[in-house]
Amino acid sequence: MLGIKQIASYLPNKKISNYDKKDKFNLDDDFIENKIGVKYHTIKEDDEKASDLCIKAYANLIHKLDIDKNNIDCVIVITQNPDFNIPHTSAIVHGKLKLSQNCACFDISLGCSGYIYGLSNILSFMQVNGLNHGLLFTADPYSEIINHEDKNTDLIFGDGATVTYISHNSLYIPKSFMFGTNGSAYKEILCDETLYMNGRAVFSFTATTIPKHIKSILENNNLEDKDIDKYILHQGSKYIVDTIRKRLKISKNKVPFDMYEYGNTVSSAVPLILEKELYKDNNQKMVLCAYGIGLSWGSAILEKIKDYNESNN
Amino acid sequence: MLGIKQIASYLPNKKISNYDKKDKFNLDDDFIENKIGVKYHTIKEDDEKASDLCIKAYANLIHKLDIDKNNIDCVIVITQNPDFNIPHTSAIVHGKLKLSQNCACFDISLGCSGYIYGLSNILSFMQVNGLNHGLLFTADPYSEIINHEDKNTDLIFGDGATVTYISHNSLYIPKSFMFGTNGSAYKEILCDETLYMNGRAVFSFTATTIPKHIKSILENNNLEDKDIDKYILHQGSKYIVDTIRKRLKISKNKVPFDMYEYGNTVSSAVPLILEKELYKDNNQKMVLCAYGIGLSWGSAILEKIKDYNESNN
Repeated sequence: MLGIKQIASYLPNKKISNYDKKDKFNLDDDFIENKIGVKYHTIKEDDEKASDLCIKAYANLIHKLDIDKNNIDCVIVITQNPDFNIPHTSAIVHGKLKLSQNCACFDISLGCSGYIYGLSNILSFMQVNGLNHGLLFTADPYSEIINHEDKNTDLIFGDGATVTYISHNSLYIPKSFMFGTNGSAYKEILCDETLYMNGRAVFSFTATTIPKHIKSILENNNLEDKDIDKYILHQGSKYIVDTIRKRLKISKNKVPFDMYEYGNTVSSAVPLILEKELYKDNNQKMVLCAYGIGLSWGSAILEKIKDYNESNN
Repeated sequence: MLGIKQIASYLPNKKISNYDKKDKFNLDDDFIENKIGVKYHTIKEDDEKASDLCIKAYANLIHKLDIDKNNIDCVIVITQNPDFNIPHTSAIVHGKLKLSQNCACFDISLGCSGYIYGLSNILSFMQVNGLNHGLLFTADPYSEIINHEDKNTDLIFGDGATVTYISHNSLYIPKSFMFGTNGSAYKEILCDETLYMNGRAVFSFTATTIPKHIKSILENNNLEDKDIDKYILHQGSKYIVDTIRKRLKISKNKVPFDMYEYGNTVSSAVPLILEKELYKDNNQKMVLCAYGIGLSWGSAILEKIKDYNESNN
């Protein structure tokens, strides 16, 4: 059955310290460490595009796993910062990786919720079309669109990319998805040349909608908090992650927080954490949940395959 | 079973005549009528965006069909000319149509092949996620990116949008899809501010790859030309459509050509023709095939449901 076999990522070495911006934006350490939860944010080179970040994530994937490139029959790139609007970035990635012509490629335009949608998309598209080896990329180099005078965005976002390898001999099967949209609030996060974000409105949406949404996906699957080993939440900010966790009364050790060193990487935030959790023994069932631009949100229940054998790797 | 129930479209009333450009580009009538096959191309108003064209296509859909907006649980917009890169245009459409929050929305970035991919995507995504009422939009207002001094593009492209209503009580079921990509040639159609197209390279790709591709999808489904009532091909130009038809030795009346009055509408070209063919009695089996930007191509076999009853409409 098609599922997640492996995840790899790329984060640029170049980082900007938010401690260096304390005077400019009148910040204290508590704000940096406990409110936004971003000490450093990663930043790509000026001449790197989304496809370059994808290629670097792929280079890290093949360090972990033998892949026969000729077998890849599906490539999806999740991005709202494509190399160009025409063509799709997945075609450029396809060209750079010299993949087979028998390969379906398309981009999905979604922001923070993109990985959850992308996961459901690639699995359903491959399953129905009889495809066997898929690459799901996420890449959102926000450094291209940030207004450095805007405290609401300049402190938060980091550049990065991930790639998830989808195959039959997999480790985790996503069992159930749930999606939602509130397009009437689409202007709350919008990019017309530079990024605008109404932080207050986005926080309020997240704090009210997402805990209910997570409760619903658990109930729909007859699950309770005790059945879930980890909740991998979109890393919008530390305050957002903490608020959702507290409202759901989930214990802190079930909710990884991991953006201090690289920031909010948008569609890459969930897979960056999932990459670290994937091969931990105790993670039998996980909830993935992401939310943001659109406004859009989505969740998935991930279940480890019982008879998975490391020797299959 | 999920399939295509209805299609509607929107083409702007405003048109530009290629006959008025004969002096500027040194054209004769034969070139206009038999080579490119575009006499007039449609052009949207300056202040209209992709989402506005989608809303107008939707207005035409509800003239044909009663739809309970509250039931719509999936919206996909195929576009490479979104209102903004952030957020996705489907969220804006969702907001303008005031749809339910229990609705999955995302954009797919693909060009000419977009409708075929989009059809497979919405069907598989809805099927696997148990969704019931979907809207698949296409909208590519190329007037935003045309360099009016470039004969290769200024004569060809028209603005338009379509919407396909996907539901269980449907008329046509897509039975089989095939996809291909040649990303190494991605620069042959590219937009960096304005659109560039290497017409010769695109023609050569189409003339060699697409006839073989159509033969393959027929063979894979144990079908021959005699089993197919219509071939709905992407309307790249009259010369491209004629060349594919001749190489496959298909009779002319099986291959609708329909861009004289509006031009190449990119992702909307196939559904604009399919809309007209959908309720014709004799179309039991159709091939859809589209190709272009990426380079990317895709085909589908559409089969009319035998027990479909007009009273279900």
